[in-house]
Amino acid sequence: MSIVITQDSPGISDVPGFRVGATSCDIRNKGVERLDLMLIVADQPCAAAGVFTTNDVKAAPVRFSQKILAASADKIRGIFGNSGNANACTSQQGDLDAALIAKLSAEAIGAPDAAFLVCSTGRIGELMPMPKVASGIAAAAKRLSCEAIEGTRSAEAILTSDTRPKTVTARFVWQGQTITLAGIAKGAGMIEPNMATMLAFVVTDAAVAPAYLKSALKSASDQSFNCVSVDGDMSTNDTVILLASGASGVSVDESAESALRDLFQAALDQVCFILAEKIVGDGEKITKVVAVEIEGAKSRGDAEKIARAIGNSLLVKSSWFGEDPNWGRLADAAGYARVGLDENQLDIFYNEIPAVLAGRPLPENKPQWKQVVKAARFAVRLNLHQGEGKFRLLAADLTDGYVNYNKSE
Amino acid sequence: MSIVITQDSPGISDVPGFRVGATSCDIRNKGVERLDLMLIVADQPCAAAGVFTTNDVKAAPVRFSQKILAASADKIRGIFGNSGNANACTSQQGDLDAALIAKLSAEAIGAPDAAFLVCSTGRIGELMPMPKVASGIAAAAKRLSCEAIEGTRSAEAILTSDTRPKTVTARFVWQGQTITLAGIAKGAGMIEPNMATMLAFVVTDAAVAPAYLKSALKSASDQSFNCVSVDGDMSTNDTVILLASGASGVSVDESAESALRDLFQAALDQVCFILAEKIVGDGEKITKVVAVEIEGAKSRGDAEKIARAIGNSLLVKSSWFGEDPNWGRLADAAGYARVGLDENQLDIFYNEIPAVLAGRPLPENKPQWKQVVKAARFAVRLNLHQGEGKFRLLAADLTDGYVNYNKSE
Repeated sequence: MSIVITQDSPGISDVPGFRVGATSCDIRNKGVERLDLMLIVADQPCAAAGVFTTNDVKAAPVRFSQKILAASADKIRGIFGNSGNANACTSQQGDLDAALIAKLSAEAIGAPDAAFLVCSTGRIGELMPMPKVASGIAAAAKRLSCEAIEGTRSAEAILTSDTRPKTVTARFVWQGQTITLAGIAKGAGMIEPNMATMLAFVVTDAAVAPAYLKSALKSASDQSFNCVSVDGDMSTNDTVILLASGASGVSVDESAESALRDLFQAALDQVCFILAEKIVGDGEKITKVVAVEIEGAKSRGDAEKIARAIGNSLLVKSSWFGEDPNWGRLADAAGYARVGLDENQLDIFYNEIPAVLAGRPLPENKPQWKQVVKAARFAVRLNLHQGEGKFRLLAADLTDGYVNYNKSE
Repeated sequence: MSIVITQDSPGISDVPGFRVGATSCDIRNKGVERLDLMLIVADQPCAAAGVFTTNDVKAAPVRFSQKILAASADKIRGIFGNSGNANACTSQQGDLDAALIAKLSAEAIGAPDAAFLVCSTGRIGELMPMPKVASGIAAAAKRLSCEAIEGTRSAEAILTSDTRPKTVTARFVWQGQTITLAGIAKGAGMIEPNMATMLAFVVTDAAVAPAYLKSALKSASDQSFNCVSVDGDMSTNDTVILLASGASGVSVDESAESALRDLFQAALDQVCFILAEKIVGDGEKITKVVAVEIEGAKSRGDAEKIARAIGNSLLVKSSWFGEDPNWGRLADAAGYARVGLDENQLDIFYNEIPAVLAGRPLPENKPQWKQVVKAARFAVRLNLHQGEGKFRLLAADLTDGYVNYNKSE
């Protein structure tokens, strides 16, 4: 029994029980044709789960979707998504607009009482252009289909400064029945100027109750979306949604065989991890993806603190850009995570090449580790020798291109 | 009774009871004449206090100086300082070298049992070139004087990527007697490639016992050196030292009149604050110094968290560089400090111009706040309306020049 992964798949349209439709309605008000609005619609109300930004400043659609999920996680009919405007910091009008978008989406599919989730990404602090959005919803609803082309278009419609759509499909067979999971995502980090957000939508045709779905999604997110960092900025709109149509007829819940449960979780983990990797790999103006692997910490929490200190250090990130294997900056950043590391026990590796062992620099290895950092992807690994705590963060370099790209609106 | 501040003064040599000497001994091994080693020597053993990095990875001289201060804070004879090598991540040999440096310094002034503090800044992970350092100590000791030129030279000797020396002198009169405080500093942030450190040395001719001196320095540092950020990276070597010679004959302690104690503290606060401001203003390749003023938080700690989230956000700092008054990024960064702010109560100002009041954007003010951010110095101010907590952080912008400067050794 194995899981088959298709990278850069059509995405949502791969999964029985769902249709998608995307359109361009000029939410950015730039007068150019660009896909910027999409609907994912389940054939029947279905189970849903979400993971949201923990930022104190949550965009209106985040607040709205959290409320809908709290009340109706067993009967969500679909997801509205748009790029170009985040509907964040938009005060009470933003809340009214998010609710109206959900209502318009439900009406557009002829089910006025259906529950829709709403996800937006784009500029902060500007009201949604509601007349455009309303006509966009109607247009997207007319296009709803399960054809691959519409899947691809919907993955494009949520992009902001991303350079390419991000999709993946996972399939496995259980007792003769194929179960499919597919996901689409848009870039992490605070992406475009004034832009917010990582968005990911994953759907499956397994039948999964909301509580089980939520814990499965939480677990997958903790090992994927929560382990990547482009610029360390957490947005107002970060959202991951998982819908389960049940169209396969295969139930995954506490009473299912553990082999099935394991397969489902592994497939979900892979979908989320691949989307997260694509997000880092397409980070703004980056040239390197670096895995920061911490081991031997007293706890996973300690390991995570060190990984984030390293992965978000301007000096470390600048040195990655310069292909400069500067282990002193790694040690320094690890130290200011202040988990009580002992530098006399610290090992530092570039891939498998040791740069420091038990606190002692190995300058004779420098030619080798200088080679390691020339690759577009490599790992830095620190072992603290203090316990069993581990954490792996996918991070990116910091480039002059990033600064110049983000310096103005 | 007022305090007279002299910016860009000769520094240490302004203060009775101290002599300084600086020399160049090619610690960087580049074969160029550059001041890189200095001694500050008190005429008599004197009281001392220090504030040090809280990084888990402390350089050998930090560990050494902490140990000396713990044992002999009432009889410190002087400070050794150098640039070019941080003596950090240098294992046991680093500790031996720091101790030997102190011993050589004491011997060089003919007082082999005298206690010296040791402060180093520069490259991480390389052993000190001890023969060069030894000859440098001898040369600096020969130059010891209280002339202004030697004060200026000593301020230069601790610089790394700083573009100018940082000095200040404060004087006030108490019952006919002048009390002087003077300080020198070098740049904050992790400055040069592989470089560490903020260093500041302050001396006074007041007579102050070590315990009082320590609490006075702690208080001054908390409002100065601990309220600045260039790149958010805390170094392995950050050190602030305060020596009190007593040469003025005026005692400042718990039993002194409160007016005298207040004057001394105010003078010390100003010396530290001015040095901290100079450090930010000379941050690597910066173009803006921005005061991030948080008020109305539930506590000072909450206000500090928000100020640091804003002051260290790559997106915020990039937008300052671009003179782009992007308040959405301020709100977003404030939100991910996660102190429980309510965006519907949030005010955001650029200097005195409101951009957001009670969560409501004021786009009509944009022409005015766009003017504010064109200045080399301005303030962003957030009021949370949740309490009395305040914090003010001096931060800098992030430039393409910073990334390119730091991308390689």
